[in-house]
Amino acid sequence: MEMANEEPKTVPQQITMKGGDGPLSYAKNSSLQKGVVDATKGMIIHAIANNLDMDKFCSQSSSQTFRIADFGCSIGPNTIFSVQNIIQALEQKHLENNHGNSSTILEFQLFFNDHSTNDFNTLFKSIPPSWPYFVAGVPGSFYGRLFPKSSIHIGHSSNALQWLSKVPQEVVDCKSPAYNDGSIYCRGIEKEVTKAYVAQFEKDMESFLNGRGEELVNGGLMVILMGGVPNGIPLSHTAIGKFYDLFGSCLLDLTNKGLVTEEKVKSFNLPLYFPSAKEVKELIERNGHFSIESMNEITEQLKRGQPLPSTQNCISHVRAGFEGLIKDHFGTEIVDEFFTCYANKHLQSGFVFGDNAVDNTLMFMILKRI
Amino acid sequence: MEMANEEPKTVPQQITMKGGDGPLSYAKNSSLQKGVVDATKGMIIHAIANNLDMDKFCSQSSSQTFRIADFGCSIGPNTIFSVQNIIQALEQKHLENNHGNSSTILEFQLFFNDHSTNDFNTLFKSIPPSWPYFVAGVPGSFYGRLFPKSSIHIGHSSNALQWLSKVPQEVVDCKSPAYNDGSIYCRGIEKEVTKAYVAQFEKDMESFLNGRGEELVNGGLMVILMGGVPNGIPLSHTAIGKFYDLFGSCLLDLTNKGLVTEEKVKSFNLPLYFPSAKEVKELIERNGHFSIESMNEITEQLKRGQPLPSTQNCISHVRAGFEGLIKDHFGTEIVDEFFTCYANKHLQSGFVFGDNAVDNTLMFMILKRI
Repeated sequence: MEMANEEPKTVPQQITMKGGDGPLSYAKNSSLQKGVVDATKGMIIHAIANNLDMDKFCSQSSSQTFRIADFGCSIGPNTIFSVQNIIQALEQKHLENNHGNSSTILEFQLFFNDHSTNDFNTLFKSIPPSWPYFVAGVPGSFYGRLFPKSSIHIGHSSNALQWLSKVPQEVVDCKSPAYNDGSIYCRGIEKEVTKAYVAQFEKDMESFLNGRGEELVNGGLMVILMGGVPNGIPLSHTAIGKFYDLFGSCLLDLTNKGLVTEEKVKSFNLPLYFPSAKEVKELIERNGHFSIESMNEITEQLKRGQPLPSTQNCISHVRAGFEGLIKDHFGTEIVDEFFTCYANKHLQSGFVFGDNAVDNTLMFMILKRI
Repeated sequence: MEMANEEPKTVPQQITMKGGDGPLSYAKNSSLQKGVVDATKGMIIHAIANNLDMDKFCSQSSSQTFRIADFGCSIGPNTIFSVQNIIQALEQKHLENNHGNSSTILEFQLFFNDHSTNDFNTLFKSIPPSWPYFVAGVPGSFYGRLFPKSSIHIGHSSNALQWLSKVPQEVVDCKSPAYNDGSIYCRGIEKEVTKAYVAQFEKDMESFLNGRGEELVNGGLMVILMGGVPNGIPLSHTAIGKFYDLFGSCLLDLTNKGLVTEEKVKSFNLPLYFPSAKEVKELIERNGHFSIESMNEITEQLKRGQPLPSTQNCISHVRAGFEGLIKDHFGTEIVDEFFTCYANKHLQSGFVFGDNAVDNTLMFMILKRI
């Protein structure tokens, strides 16, 4: 069910967060995302209340199963909170629809999807034992098909769609005009580099929308939260860009120390693309499987409500998110050295995420299968 | 979704096979079961051909999803082979039903169930990347509900139902008339001990049948393979009984060496019960959710076709199956010592599985949800 890919791989395609529940794991370092989950709770309840025609799905029988899928779930606990919010919204709407006295019992089957290399063991252990829902883990890339036709009522994807299925081959090819010389990410400034990244992003989004288009029932909703940039702003001018610059400079330090070869660094780029809302809107419209019920760009109002994470939290968070990528490309032996280097630079430079940079946006979208 | 259990636990309830894919793992030591899977392939094809009314499930649409669940899947690869056999049988029947030219596309969604402590990461890695089926892992005890109402077409369970949800409390209580003095399993000779084990088995089978009764569609099939004894033969007279005697004697050796306390050994019993076909038949009939379409007892004819496993294979197999139980009750530090002791005894005694013992039976049943 993975997408066919005949081009040579540049970085491994299966990007997963650090597993287990140790102090450096994603499970223990996902508090930044938790803030986002909390902030979007109200929006999810509002979206389901206003955009979902529940009666359409409800059979005449005494029980009704809702199937909910989270695409790119990682290992928790945020996926648990997100899905819980969706269930709460569905139950609330069901109660209101029936003026508080429905005899139909709602059953929920929850599918947690991520790459087959994701740590599902840790995810399953983090599921509350008292949860009255039916749970399943679904291994595989969400750029391919994962579920039978018309079997999902609500899809959800948070902070996942900016991860590409792979790095575009040209950007790590010294002979290509799209070679991304001296940078590890799509800064949004070099025209040919950007073009290569955009092409990959468009291809991946098309695959994602086609897959979900098959899998969602008619009238089903996709709730998507994804990172982006304000329209017209290159990523390198934003908070995330500044962070990748710092991150990339550590690789150069390791090269200077003779710990990794220049070739290794040159062939490394991040499989990430942060689009503008305008780009995403156009792709969804062109694809045609979904109508856009709502699309919000979230920036300052989110941060205001959130306490600033401590430096140590920030560093652990970075390691949880990127350790897998570094390990796969540069080898296990370099991982500790790399993140020590990163931590030192982070502390010495007094790096504060978002300082002297344009805020990134988070796009929150409700799509309906038409 | 686990069954409520307010009595004190004697051994941990979540029995799972040894994970990973190292030389001592279940994945590498499940060749004995593989023989069984191969031997029952023909029976599965025959059962689906004769007992499944596929047209009943087929909608008028251009695609049809079959949902198949394996209960107690462990970590592969046998669960993969078993499910593959079921799919082959369904495809064959579909083709025959439509005289080779059906326009309906069959889609298969496969659910692999085992305890949440099962190593699903290893299971997911063992799934063939080219498999054109939709796959999901479902954590939880099959003595509780695992799926929405009427959502599964074919259920399968192989070598799992002899594992009880727990050891009956009385058999490890020195003050109880059912105290299983000097043995670690239900020998089938001491009346009160047997009564306690039978009561637990009946309760567990009832929970299993009630759960599957809710989850299977009307007309859906349950394919069950489970270990047992010939009618009227106590387990201690059978090959499996002789093996447990040897296994249990190693615990006494460790006590004599002062490595484990007598109390620890006295509070240890295996959460296993091997019923006769007669007992199982009566339980299914009393439960009432399923009709018995066929029930076969397999003994000699299976073994004849199988090469005898080597001693080393046999020892590794035992460790893969029982390491978790020993570790949970006696602690990690004793595991190596225990299995070294077992291996020595096995070799020194010239133990041959099944020598001087009554053959155990394997019951192969096809049940239909009525």
